[in-house]
Amino acid sequence: MKKKNKKVNAAILIIGNEILSGRTQDKNVAFISNWLNSTCGISVDEVRIIPDVEKKIVNNVLLLSKKFNYVFTTGGIGPTHDDITAKSISKAFKVKYEFHKEAYKILEKYYGKIKFNDGRKKMAKMPKGSKLIYNPSSAAPGFITKNVLSLPGVPSILNSMIENCKKYLKKGAKVHSKTLNLYTVESNIAKKLSNIQKKYKKFVDIGSYPFFRLGKIGVAIVTRSTSQKKLKNVNTDIMKLIKLKNIEILNL
Amino acid sequence: MKKKNKKVNAAILIIGNEILSGRTQDKNVAFISNWLNSTCGISVDEVRIIPDVEKKIVNNVLLLSKKFNYVFTTGGIGPTHDDITAKSISKAFKVKYEFHKEAYKILEKYYGKIKFNDGRKKMAKMPKGSKLIYNPSSAAPGFITKNVLSLPGVPSILNSMIENCKKYLKKGAKVHSKTLNLYTVESNIAKKLSNIQKKYKKFVDIGSYPFFRLGKIGVAIVTRSTSQKKLKNVNTDIMKLIKLKNIEILNL
Repeated sequence: MKKKNKKVNAAILIIGNEILSGRTQDKNVAFISNWLNSTCGISVDEVRIIPDVEKKIVNNVLLLSKKFNYVFTTGGIGPTHDDITAKSISKAFKVKYEFHKEAYKILEKYYGKIKFNDGRKKMAKMPKGSKLIYNPSSAAPGFITKNVLSLPGVPSILNSMIENCKKYLKKGAKVHSKTLNLYTVESNIAKKLSNIQKKYKKFVDIGSYPFFRLGKIGVAIVTRSTSQKKLKNVNTDIMKLIKLKNIEILNL
Repeated sequence: MKKKNKKVNAAILIIGNEILSGRTQDKNVAFISNWLNSTCGISVDEVRIIPDVEKKIVNNVLLLSKKFNYVFTTGGIGPTHDDITAKSISKAFKVKYEFHKEAYKILEKYYGKIKFNDGRKKMAKMPKGSKLIYNPSSAAPGFITKNVLSLPGVPSILNSMIENCKKYLKKGAKVHSKTLNLYTVESNIAKKLSNIQKKYKKFVDIGSYPFFRLGKIGVAIVTRSTSQKKLKNVNTDIMKLIKLKNIEILNL
């Protein structure tokens, strides 16, 4: 049980011109990050969004895979010319880019021999030594190469595959969190909140986020910690501050 | 008019634990990127999302400000302890972190002398030499330090300020785009589309994005170019492919 408290982290590398240009709103960062923390106790510590350019994919995969326990890539594993993630990861790790036998079989069975054209075959090509991440919604599998897990960009397909990543991931300490929604302004509590943060510096992370609801201004105070006890203690201190300042709590 | 065709690029640095943890869905990337391209002809070439950690802000600001014409930071310029963007940028550029006289006056006037407490005063502290980006919705200004523009994280406030960034930005060549929504699957057109991309390699970027609508599967073909003529030519070629394959176009 000792290892349970170990911090395990990940980076997300979003590959896609459509996200960078603003044409498409990314939804994968929030989904993957929430899933990783709640299911595996893994925290996402950095995200990068880069274009479909081989050199950029290669450099970022190499750098992030050294810096973090895991890297999740999204996008660029479909059948068209702009899908270059698998090839780029092969280059990054200097391994062959070749047909994965099982992936080939899965796709051939899904499409049938006649409809299994070159574009579709391309989706069975991966870095040598990759293991598959099964895809229950549209067959074409994702894959894990060393510590890099490659998933598609379409959120509904990615979401359907995420549970199949679990077996490749070691678990870390889950981050617990508590949110207090207050009808106040940040500057009313900033100083005292800062003192509380200093007191719990190493154990609890306190975030303060303004919101607007029903025409009123408020602040969400989010506390996060791997220790439930410390989380309770910090919230006792925050409740004292709320009473002292006579602040109304918004129950959602 | 010669300079009009020059490429001008930018990076976005999202500073905020709440985005990384998945608690908050980022909306600023798509907004800033769309605005930069349509208004200034500036393309966003990289996005990073990092936590509220001084060292990470310092390193990323330095690296990105060297690599791109502009860097837009979002988040971390409010009154609370976790708002450390201004201080971190001062460290990055080795300039003093001090009160900006005009920002101080704006905030003092907005809150009134009595309510202008320490938290609120903090929002007037900036890297020495910064110029203000006025904030019509909640007074606290953003600022530009060298080529780094710092905006707040709350989308509605950021959106209200974006036009005030314009005077600090040089214009680049606008990227024009055209989208064709087709009732087909990617692998049906992958090969021929790849040939078209090769033909226009340097001038037009062709993206292919699957979609699901009204129970039918489709592909959006997005072509992007700074040349309207080249964009027209590439779409003529794509229309030929559509006719050849007898593909239905979805009119939106």
